[in-house]
Amino acid sequence: MNADPVEAQVRVRYVETDQMSVAHHANYLAWFEVGRTEWCRAKGFTYRDLETKEGILLMVAEVRCRYKSPARYDDVLTIRTQVNNFKKRLITFGYEILNAATREVVAAGESVHVVTDRNGRVRSLPEKYVRFFS
Amino acid sequence: MNADPVEAQVRVRYVETDQMSVAHHANYLAWFEVGRTEWCRAKGFTYRDLETKEGILLMVAEVRCRYKSPARYDDVLTIRTQVNNFKKRLITFGYEILNAATREVVAAGESVHVVTDRNGRVRSLPEKYVRFFS
Amino acid sequence: MNADPVEAQVRVRYVETDQMSVAHHANYLAWFEVGRTEWCRAKGFTYRDLETKEGILLMVAEVRCRYKSPARYDDVLTIRTQVNNFKKRLITFGYEILNAATREVVAAGESVHVVTDRNGRVRSLPEKYVRFFS
Amino acid sequence: MNADPVEAQVRVRYVETDQMSVAHHANYLAWFEVGRTEWCRAKGFTYRDLETKEGILLMVAEVRCRYKSPARYDDVLTIRTQVNNFKKRLITFGYEILNAATREVVAAGESVHVVTDRNGRVRSLPEKYVRFFS
Repeated sequence: MNADPVEAQVRVRYVETDQMSVAHHANYLAWFEVGRTEWCRAKGFTYRDLETKEGILLMVAEVRCRYKSPARYDDVLTIRTQVNNFKKRLITFGYEILNAATREVVAAGESVHVVTDRNGRVRSLPEKYVRFFS
Repeated sequence: MNADPVEAQVRVRYVETDQMSVAHHANYLAWFEVGRTEWCRAKGFTYRDLETKEGILLMVAEVRCRYKSPARYDDVLTIRTQVNNFKKRLITFGYEILNAATREVVAAGESVHVVTDRNGRVRSLPEKYVRFFS
Repeated sequence: MNADPVEAQVRVRYVETDQMSVAHHANYLAWFEVGRTEWCRAKGFTYRDLETKEGILLMVAEVRCRYKSPARYDDVLTIRTQVNNFKKRLITFGYEILNAATREVVAAGESVHVVTDRNGRVRSLPEKYVRFFS
Repeated sequence: MNADPVEAQVRVRYVETDQMSVAHHANYLAWFEVGRTEWCRAKGFTYRDLETKEGILLMVAEVRCRYKSPARYDDVLTIRTQVNNFKKRLITFGYEILNAATREVVAAGESVHVVTDRNGRVRSLPEKYVRFFS
């Protein structure tokens, strides 16, 4: 299993704040997704190609997130993404989000993905992609 | 031209607020879209069918919005949608958003749409839909 | 503990879809939030008042969601919200999202909230609100 | 008037796509906002400080956007932001969004902002910030 975390950065956008003056908790799922996109790129492929060239989707089956300290507008966040579990039909990514300036842990979470085709039928990840995960 | 406005309602969601404690201005475009969806339904068809059964999209070419008074979390808003201009390949919708409790005007705007197929090629609106607009 | 579920409805917005042609999974957290807002209203108070009159926030500490069947543009969803666990400083809400037309379960989840003041300090829920939860 | 454009980059996120398989048009307003944030930073101050230290907000009064070619998931976009018009109480920003790889123009727009205090009362921009704009 390829457990080396890959780091990506986002800066908290104004639109992502809410009236508590912190980043709204739903945005963390979008940041996890940025983490996955950059994990793929760092490993040597793009999620875009997986979808458009192979017709393979990583459908989200489950998400968990624990919020540890607030993120605020204009904060730079580091998203550390890794594969926590890999099977050909089921992939679990793990995430840690840090405040890039203070290194404080902002959140941690996990997402579970089923490998499917465009019609939502379960598939095995194509062989040539397996090596990126294992 | 079918200029009778159609009313739809939304309640401002917490996620739609920002740290100014008002609804973020980008959400108004999503509310306009709710207005268009309900305009179609009130006229006798669904935008979903137009896309899935006819393969016709109303691609957004231009949007304008003037923000007149803030909308806040849990406010109920009335979206009044009408067709401002109709050609078979170009449709302009107009919107007025009111605070449903106070009737204060919250925003007004317009969106211009090009009629296309799934590949983005300009098309004429299918004949059987023309009557809804004119 | 007040375990009667409260039902609220949302219609999937176009902006909530993604290129898989289903509602993007981050929106479910916003729908859970709609569920909480309507749970409060059904029980006899508003979350808006809790924040603005009492200065009390229900800060999200943790979220979990399992995605069971896709939601699509223009689908009407029923959000069933209940309190799964109540302590004066820690509240857990549970959610089930159903397709309102087919009654198929679309998703289920939970969110854990810490009761805080505006500065993020942990507080007890004010006495007069306790009865709504217990 | 300080008309030198400032460039910022964003990569289109999966959550920003819709079922037309392009970036949903509401996201462009969030990207304009990223452009404004980076315009401020490039000129020598932060919008965050303007809000938190001076209590001054640039409330959005009007937005216009023309969509010229679609942006897709994983595309890198360059946002070119400039000040189109400056008065002490009214600021107009202009934007051009380009596909960073093809240099194709994706969109162009404008936003008009009223300078206010936290209570929404119109104010003049504090003297020490005026030089950044003129």
